[in-house]
Amino acid sequence: MENIIKTLREKKPLVHCITNYVTVNDCANVLLAIGASPIMSDEEKDVEDIVSICSALVINIGTLNQRTVKSMLLAGKKANKLGIPVVLDPVGNGASKFRTETTNTILKEIKLAAIKGNISEIKMIYSGIASTRGVDAGLADKDTIENKIKIAQELSKKIGCIIAITGKTDVVADGKLVYTIDNGSAKMGNITGAGCMCTCLVGSFLGAFDNKLEATVSAIAVMGIAGELADKQNIGTGSFRTGLIDQLSWMDDKIFNDEKKIFSK
Amino acid sequence: MENIIKTLREKKPLVHCITNYVTVNDCANVLLAIGASPIMSDEEKDVEDIVSICSALVINIGTLNQRTVKSMLLAGKKANKLGIPVVLDPVGNGASKFRTETTNTILKEIKLAAIKGNISEIKMIYSGIASTRGVDAGLADKDTIENKIKIAQELSKKIGCIIAITGKTDVVADGKLVYTIDNGSAKMGNITGAGCMCTCLVGSFLGAFDNKLEATVSAIAVMGIAGELADKQNIGTGSFRTGLIDQLSWMDDKIFNDEKKIFSK
Amino acid sequence: MENIIKTLREKKPLVHCITNYVTVNDCANVLLAIGASPIMSDEEKDVEDIVSICSALVINIGTLNQRTVKSMLLAGKKANKLGIPVVLDPVGNGASKFRTETTNTILKEIKLAAIKGNISEIKMIYSGIASTRGVDAGLADKDTIENKIKIAQELSKKIGCIIAITGKTDVVADGKLVYTIDNGSAKMGNITGAGCMCTCLVGSFLGAFDNKLEATVSAIAVMGIAGELADKQNIGTGSFRTGLIDQLSWMDDKIFNDEKKIFSK
Repeated sequence: MENIIKTLREKKPLVHCITNYVTVNDCANVLLAIGASPIMSDEEKDVEDIVSICSALVINIGTLNQRTVKSMLLAGKKANKLGIPVVLDPVGNGASKFRTETTNTILKEIKLAAIKGNISEIKMIYSGIASTRGVDAGLADKDTIENKIKIAQELSKKIGCIIAITGKTDVVADGKLVYTIDNGSAKMGNITGAGCMCTCLVGSFLGAFDNKLEATVSAIAVMGIAGELADKQNIGTGSFRTGLIDQLSWMDDKIFNDEKKIFSK
Repeated sequence: MENIIKTLREKKPLVHCITNYVTVNDCANVLLAIGASPIMSDEEKDVEDIVSICSALVINIGTLNQRTVKSMLLAGKKANKLGIPVVLDPVGNGASKFRTETTNTILKEIKLAAIKGNISEIKMIYSGIASTRGVDAGLADKDTIENKIKIAQELSKKIGCIIAITGKTDVVADGKLVYTIDNGSAKMGNITGAGCMCTCLVGSFLGAFDNKLEATVSAIAVMGIAGELADKQNIGTGSFRTGLIDQLSWMDDKIFNDEKKIFSK
Repeated sequence: MENIIKTLREKKPLVHCITNYVTVNDCANVLLAIGASPIMSDEEKDVEDIVSICSALVINIGTLNQRTVKSMLLAGKKANKLGIPVVLDPVGNGASKFRTETTNTILKEIKLAAIKGNISEIKMIYSGIASTRGVDAGLADKDTIENKIKIAQELSKKIGCIIAITGKTDVVADGKLVYTIDNGSAKMGNITGAGCMCTCLVGSFLGAFDNKLEATVSAIAVMGIAGELADKQNIGTGSFRTGLIDQLSWMDDKIFNDEKKIFSK
């Protein structure tokens, strides 16, 4: 896609986020920094109207509760009805029975455009689905890039949506193609919310572009590039967080094209 | 009012905020920066006690839910009983039926000191009320300063509270007088929460001063001045947000009087 | 304890926080900055699983509601069963009947490792418990260090947990020993959440070390040192907040040992 950042800023997609209250402010600021618009709503009586005026829906279960899970399902189904792309960040999937059940319910009831998680969260989905057909459990415990690619490919085929596994090297698959992304900084793990912010960026790109795989890959690369550029010698984590948002607000196609490390596998 | 900033810092008004979880941290920090004190509470069993020890109540419906709407009404009625000023920020009024209904319920059940919103949110209130007497709908769609002034004036008379319409030029009316304010920076739209923070400042000024119109106008000017001063060549949005709060913490009467662009209409 | 910061960073304790939504992002970032890991969850169906994988539980009632109070009790009891230390920050105890009742319920139903509050919040607990045995009410109104020490000592003996009273000089007692800490900066009162962040640090130290008194004292000193080092001539409060987290991310045993002002009483 030509001029992807410029186009995103022109389209200014409105992104409905049902997300955790820990990192929600950073999520909103990151969306504004890249040129999108955030709107947060998690009330049953509100979400269907809100999602209807949006270009994408982000569901993040980081601080889920029974009330907001209902809203996630209502918003997701409405988005499906209207053809609005939905991205899921299954934060902490596997850490509790409720998170795993919620993730599975969302998978069953909502047609997702993409799922973005770390390897542990994605493997939890994979093994749940895979177990019914005798998965090599051993495989799932080895986090080599090859295995991540295998999991992303199989899962994306099985579910029929893009699977993005973030880590030192990110892996994105859509059932046909696979990309890896080598942008990023270790400092991103020293602040809260880099993953949540990345998912919101994915939402904004999904809302703006028809090529969903390229949109997802680009969004993840953009986040990684911002992290790299914000990472300076001995910068503290408070300043790094500020710098990350600064870098997103300065992002343009020249920076994106110069810095992106996206590889087709 | 003489020495308005100094007086506010001396009075240190305690402001009860029932506000959205997206920008709540910035709201608290902005109140502290200007010399007020924040207290957040949205629990039915808690809000009446909390508002009773406060000088002002801020209601912001940005991430409203059925539970917190009940708390807004309880807190607002208690504030009315005690003569504590209440300011409403009807975030997203018009974007959903639930937001519009909630705004209307608040208007009906609570005597407000001020409403602060953008033109779209205020017009939604205006047209709701106006429609019953055959409003020129065409008028409401033209956002010239003249129309904003007309809407603010009519609405403030009709509701009997101050109406503040924020935008490039802010308009504030109380049914008799009208002011415009030309402070501010376009960068304020590139971070989340500038509007919410401004409403909290309005709350703190309403809690500290008897002249409610001048309090509202001054608070909005203070927010705009901080934005102007924080706005530097190519500053990133992360740093701009930090700078905005820095500028509020450095605000004094000299800066306020030197920089304010308040005009009586 | 030798190399307390290094050891904490190696142990990387996972800390479950049920905390207020105002300062939750700073709490998460502070935990990451010092080398711990945060996990936030306040859903009834989620908290028992989450606390089970953690090294400590932080309960902060800053924006409590009926739903989250239930979760606090469930998580606390589960933590007790598993021998996981629990620290309580009774934010606003005394400001409303609901906060006072909740604090008392938590005290009755959960065995706490530590309570950390300001003098007003702690005195509310003290007078509640003390009143039944004819406390000198006059005493409780004088906030000299001597009185704070007396209150901390009596209360820690009575409840059987560490009592930390934060202020210009912090006081920490465990029923046997008493320490005072003279680190800190007045600027910490000009941002929201310094107290909440401190409680989270206490949680992380309690989760990492067996000597609970020394852990609590060290955590409070670490917070104060970061505040001192971030405090520069005329720094704005936005930048001070960022600097505080930077300083925590740079904290090491040399800085800690050089800067700590911990006194045994």
